[in-house]
Amino acid sequence: MLTSVSLNLSGERFRVVYHLTSNEADARAKARDICVEQTVEFPGDLVPLGDIQDFIVGKIETFEPLNDNLFRVEISYAVEISGFELVQLLNVIFGNTSIKPGVRVMSLDLPQSLLKTFIGPRFGRRGMRSYLNVPKRPLLCTALKPMGYSAKLFAEFAYQFALGGIDIIKDDHGLANQPFSPFKERIELCTEAVEQANRETGRKCIYVPNITAPADQVIENARYAKSVGAGGLLISPGLTGFDVMRQLADDDSIALPIMSHPAFQGSFVTSSEQGISHYALYGQIMRLAGADASIYPNYGGRFSFSRDECKSIVDGTQVHMDHIKSIFPTPGGGMSLESIPGMCEFYGNDVIFLIGGNLHRHGPNLVENSRRFLELVEKTSV
Amino acid sequence: MLTSVSLNLSGERFRVVYHLTSNEADARAKARDICVEQTVEFPGDLVPLGDIQDFIVGKIETFEPLNDNLFRVEISYAVEISGFELVQLLNVIFGNTSIKPGVRVMSLDLPQSLLKTFIGPRFGRRGMRSYLNVPKRPLLCTALKPMGYSAKLFAEFAYQFALGGIDIIKDDHGLANQPFSPFKERIELCTEAVEQANRETGRKCIYVPNITAPADQVIENARYAKSVGAGGLLISPGLTGFDVMRQLADDDSIALPIMSHPAFQGSFVTSSEQGISHYALYGQIMRLAGADASIYPNYGGRFSFSRDECKSIVDGTQVHMDHIKSIFPTPGGGMSLESIPGMCEFYGNDVIFLIGGNLHRHGPNLVENSRRFLELVEKTSV
Repeated sequence: MLTSVSLNLSGERFRVVYHLTSNEADARAKARDICVEQTVEFPGDLVPLGDIQDFIVGKIETFEPLNDNLFRVEISYAVEISGFELVQLLNVIFGNTSIKPGVRVMSLDLPQSLLKTFIGPRFGRRGMRSYLNVPKRPLLCTALKPMGYSAKLFAEFAYQFALGGIDIIKDDHGLANQPFSPFKERIELCTEAVEQANRETGRKCIYVPNITAPADQVIENARYAKSVGAGGLLISPGLTGFDVMRQLADDDSIALPIMSHPAFQGSFVTSSEQGISHYALYGQIMRLAGADASIYPNYGGRFSFSRDECKSIVDGTQVHMDHIKSIFPTPGGGMSLESIPGMCEFYGNDVIFLIGGNLHRHGPNLVENSRRFLELVEKTSV
Repeated sequence: MLTSVSLNLSGERFRVVYHLTSNEADARAKARDICVEQTVEFPGDLVPLGDIQDFIVGKIETFEPLNDNLFRVEISYAVEISGFELVQLLNVIFGNTSIKPGVRVMSLDLPQSLLKTFIGPRFGRRGMRSYLNVPKRPLLCTALKPMGYSAKLFAEFAYQFALGGIDIIKDDHGLANQPFSPFKERIELCTEAVEQANRETGRKCIYVPNITAPADQVIENARYAKSVGAGGLLISPGLTGFDVMRQLADDDSIALPIMSHPAFQGSFVTSSEQGISHYALYGQIMRLAGADASIYPNYGGRFSFSRDECKSIVDGTQVHMDHIKSIFPTPGGGMSLESIPGMCEFYGNDVIFLIGGNLHRHGPNLVENSRRFLELVEKTSV
């Protein structure tokens, strides 16, 4: 046994719900293992007594069967071990345990003493509605595609989308700084095109460039986008790290709405027995990390999310988390105009509908196609 | 059909091998889908003809059955769509496709025209051996634990480990900047303790602090660690983003060996039907991202990697990738002195053995325990 130590801990704890897939005996062992693996990472019989054993090691708060082979366990951790920052918080929640099969993070319950560390989304749902002058209906989003087109062609698309009534025109997440459409040129031309359309329509459409980039260029890209007049930022936190998005969101000199893209994060959700739940990943964690809109693949498109999983994402974007604002679920991924009525019914008003490539399907007149998108939403939303 | 465009592409392509789990018809459809999803992300029938259809869309190079329900497909992409940077390269390899079940990235084959973008590991195996004055035998590594101990207690451990002959003493990956062991204090005391031991032994042991931190503090932490005299850096790229590690590795003003920790990356590997293979993730990608040593859970410990998976990691750390150096596989996770002879046989000499908590198991004299570790390795390595 190692030296016992006294720590001056607050007694405040945060809770994580995990689902464990296995028989009951193994599930109980897994639960005890998580308590150690996510904290002291030390042989159980050697853990020092005193405050480390009593407070640093995770605690099983509840353990209940969901069926013979699935168990729900709630484990609490001292808030201090998060270091009061997102990276280490995520590490405590799922760092090493991510490598163990049959464990899935389902939800987070963070006390005010920990949540106050986080600013969260700068705009949230209300802020984005006010920023875009759209008080009630779902917001309309499209993406500039296909990769290979020039900045000039994308700017022409953006102009037409904006004229037709789209609220948010984002870069496709695969548009980076490739030779055929360099980042700066694209930002300049597309921002200008959308501003021109706004002058003609009197509406407020925003262009949201993809600023995902090498680690030393993300913030620089964001500042550049801001300086040129971009209306928001798109980032893939699975590629950059969640905390880069948090840093962007917290930066008062940038202060633009942030849309998170799910690229390179799929492995967290594709297996129902491990990873992180749709609710926690696309809802709670995106909010802690400062996204104002969380993009994910809708049910019925070219991905495999179910209606229930999409519903759980909506729940995660709006569950009460103290001062952390609710954000917009942003379903996309193979959506089309035909799916709008059903989506309006399913999602209600507080949603951003993202139709990308399929907005090109109804003929080459993108102004017309965008108008149809807007009319459909206005007609069928509640 | 959209406007056809001519692009001035080099014709150079990189290749990714994916495993697809499904029947043959679905596997063929999945393969075609990857070609589109990872590039133009556009309805197949609307993709512009010309260079976009011919070169930007991914190409199926080979497709072969491995069994009735498992297919190996090799897809090539134009090097230009990587934007010649790691973040976008990873996005092309697996961005959206990560969200589709039944697709696993197995290996990467990058041409010299793309590899020259990357510096890769600064030290690699040869560089670390020379840096640590250990020409032949496996390197010995341990971790400072358990979380909750003070910087002063960790420094005392570090001193004893260094006296006993450990080559690399790293922070446990859960040691961040918590109140009970603040980052700067820990770095200062542990660096000093290891230097003191080195003066007494005449050996070169290095202390490798965990610099994983909020996005705006990682580089600052690294510079601080360097300024105080730390001998290497530990980072969890699953938490910070891979490219932050690449940035650290490329920074000539830091120039320390980098150890990557697998925290928060497990979801890539835990399901054999999706994610990224052990070979590609802990081998090839870590090298592109600049790690000199790739930590992963060994077979037979408290994680579930198989011997074959560990063998494949070794292969990934040393497969020829032009100028990108070979790096050290660093198995850990529940290893003990008893497992050393078997590990020596399995891994040979080019390995770093990481024994953490179990080095406390053989009594409180850490100098003695470390000596036994060294003797065992010297006695049983080839």
